Amino acid sequence: MSESAVKNNTTDERLASLDEALESGRMRRLKPMLHALNPAEIGLLLESIPRAKRELVWGLIPDEDRGETLLHVNDEVRVELINALDGDSLLAATEGMPIDDLADLIEDLPEQVTREVLHSMDVDNRERLKAVLSYAPDSAGGLMNNDTVTVRPDVSLDVVSRYLRQRGSLPDDTDALFVVSRYGRYVGILSLAKLATLDPERDVSEIMRTDIDALPVDMPAAQVAKRFQDLDLISAPVVDSEQRLLGRITIDDVVDVIRDEAEHSIMTMAGLDEEEDVFAPIARSARRRAVWLGTNLATAFLASEVVSLFSNTLSQVVALAVLMPIVASMGGIGGSQTLTLMIRGLSLGQIGFSNARTLLFKELAVALLNGLLWGVVVGGVAVLWFHSLALGLIMAAALVINQLNAAITGVAIPLAMKKMGIDPALAGSVVLTTFTDVIGFASFLGLGTLFLLH
Amino acid sequence: MSESAVKNNTTDERLASLDEALESGRMRRLKPMLHALNPAEIGLLLESIPRAKRELVWGLIPDEDRGETLLHVNDEVRVELINALDGDSLLAATEGMPIDDLADLIEDLPEQVTREVLHSMDVDNRERLKAVLSYAPDSAGGLMNNDTVTVRPDVSLDVVSRYLRQRGSLPDDTDALFVVSRYGRYVGILSLAKLATLDPERDVSEIMRTDIDALPVDMPAAQVAKRFQDLDLISAPVVDSEQRLLGRITIDDVVDVIRDEAEHSIMTMAGLDEEEDVFAPIARSARRRAVWLGTNLATAFLASEVVSLFSNTLSQVVALAVLMPIVASMGGIGGSQTLTLMIRGLSLGQIGFSNARTLLFKELAVALLNGLLWGVVVGGVAVLWFHSLALGLIMAAALVINQLNAAITGVAIPLAMKKMGIDPALAGSVVLTTFTDVIGFASFLGLGTLFLLH
Repeated sequence: MSESAVKNNTTDERLASLDEALESGRMRRLKPMLHALNPAEIGLLLESIPRAKRELVWGLIPDEDRGETLLHVNDEVRVELINALDGDSLLAATEGMPIDDLADLIEDLPEQVTREVLHSMDVDNRERLKAVLSYAPDSAGGLMNNDTVTVRPDVSLDVVSRYLRQRGSLPDDTDALFVVSRYGRYVGILSLAKLATLDPERDVSEIMRTDIDALPVDMPAAQVAKRFQDLDLISAPVVDSEQRLLGRITIDDVVDVIRDEAEHSIMTMAGLDEEEDVFAPIARSARRRAVWLGTNLATAFLASEVVSLFSNTLSQVVALAVLMPIVASMGGIGGSQTLTLMIRGLSLGQIGFSNARTLLFKELAVALLNGLLWGVVVGGVAVLWFHSLALGLIMAAALVINQLNAAITGVAIPLAMKKMGIDPALAGSVVLTTFTDVIGFASFLGLGTLFLLH
Repeated sequence: MSESAVKNNTTDERLASLDEALESGRMRRLKPMLHALNPAEIGLLLESIPRAKRELVWGLIPDEDRGETLLHVNDEVRVELINALDGDSLLAATEGMPIDDLADLIEDLPEQVTREVLHSMDVDNRERLKAVLSYAPDSAGGLMNNDTVTVRPDVSLDVVSRYLRQRGSLPDDTDALFVVSRYGRYVGILSLAKLATLDPERDVSEIMRTDIDALPVDMPAAQVAKRFQDLDLISAPVVDSEQRLLGRITIDDVVDVIRDEAEHSIMTMAGLDEEEDVFAPIARSARRRAVWLGTNLATAFLASEVVSLFSNTLSQVVALAVLMPIVASMGGIGGSQTLTLMIRGLSLGQIGFSNARTLLFKELAVALLNGLLWGVVVGGVAVLWFHSLALGLIMAAALVINQLNAAITGVAIPLAMKKMGIDPALAGSVVLTTFTDVIGFASFLGLGTLFLLH
């Protein structure tokens, strides 16, 4: 299986040989390498190479792969790639794409091209595309494809079979037909598996599944994803408020939602945008990250303010300056563990206001145990290092106080942010470390001022 | 649609009313509430309630929902729930479960129950289960179901149709039949959609798809997930090293892999285990998190060591003690942005050793720009606050140095960990902040010692 061996190469190896071909200018070697890849792999590759070389590689991709490739790159790279093509190439790239995919792409196309794309479609498809575009992209309507094949409940399987043969084909990924009433209302699902195995004389109404609820067209994408995961669905019908069938959602589109959601949390927690190009222009990246650094700076100054209240103490007992980062840092780590647990629990629906109290008690108990354990260690080290029992006791006490503080803020901040309608992943960690720094410095230096000054 | 209204209730609302019913001891109200939920929702609910109440609710779940519910909870809760059931109830819970799901569950069952489960199965299913159990859980073999329906390439569609009618049913989620040669080797896929729409006189070999490569049985689960996402697959055949068909993987099992991978990164970055019960016993949670806190403590002491080198400076210029947390903190934030970008890029395959140099230059440039911007701000504030131009310049310089350091370590640490075969999400942030703290303190206090001491 030499072809599969090629496919199993890591991206890194592929990148290396592509890089080599690009450097040496051997375009003839490059083309077959690119043709062996599928659109998802081409997309990943384009995201992985610096912008300067990206346009060159993009020019070598065959038209028929370009449309789908655009679906597999992040928003920023997509806009860049679209801008690199002229109208005719874009028109060629979008030819024959499924309606739901085209709908995802069309908002990024230049207006002139959009008009031409619409113009080149037949009336049916144009109407379908317009229908999909009328729904929010992050709703069931935005995810759905409206190429459903429907049958009526009062016909026999044999009639259905003859209808399908006459039709001659079914849309991609069709594993079931939808059963609709005379008024277009969704009543059930007829799987192709049942159609193929059961007695042709039986009626559709006898064997269709009616236990799968249709998704309302305005259901948020996140809820659609949850429904698919909970019920292990492969496809599901979408209806309007009057239960009229509008289309279907297949799981391949839902998988993208699931992955994007998880990535969103990781990136947001670091103040990054998941649609950002890794090789975005330096000025643009710097501008975006500056906001996050600036926010952190404001909170860092707040912590410094607190430290400066104890300037007199610090000038007399330098050991406090040496040890003060430890209490703050341990609070930050403990708090970020609670915070991460909360952010994940809230997004899974595991944690809400009703069980938060129980969780807070548990986190406080965990913080107390760990505060005592590491308080003894830290205090012991401080005693040995600076030969002061009082310093050791102060440090242990401050560590316990700050671990408890970390547990409380770790539970409270995401709940408060949720109540205010803010994504808890966003800025949660900056707010948390503000609390753990301020309380950490204040408790340690405050106790030091009380008990160590003479 | 009152039933769908119930279903659309948020978990939080459901938890609240469940809590109320539990508190008031009104079991009669509880039961219908639980019966309205599907196994995934029951699983989430069980994860969301404290351990004391969990067993009570678990006792009210009907036998037929229990097996699937166990699949929807994390490892820790699963073991707890299994231990709460006796052998007969466990046997009843596992009855009729699909082989691949049963295989996931069986390793957690008591040995006695496992033997009884195997005993209660017919020979065919027992052999199938044993076959699935012989593969690693995180490989294609562990994910697959071996209830495939196969046909031969040299028969007509009509023959296939008659065979299926004789069979009378197909396994769940079957959207295609697999075409195998006389020796059991995989040769292609016949979708039910084609079977239903094309001329019955045509041969299977004419219309089957041969462009979908079978997955090797030992392919890692992560790679299986990537292949499904790249090619938008719904199901895929699994073969042994001789291309003999062993089973099929359906996308619903792959979705779990995709979600688990994303969760793994988030939790690992905070030193947590994604299979941990949110309401785990306090001692167990504390013990686990202690390791992470202890690791951080060791690195925090390292930073303190560095600070202590400048004790003399600190006792003379207290302003340095006040301002030193800022430089360290800004380095930590900048570095964690680069680190997050790297961890995500590495796991997506966007970043590798071949393009790391380009990325490093970009990150250094971004760090320089932001270092200069916030250096001027920070320096300005320091000058106004402490009326010392030298202090402002030192602070600005230290901030630039530490941002550059953060960019370098943010790129280098995950690459180094990957080279050593360690998950970059694990401990990456602890190692990073060690560098940003040490270099941050050293550069700021070092410059202070050089230029501010008299």
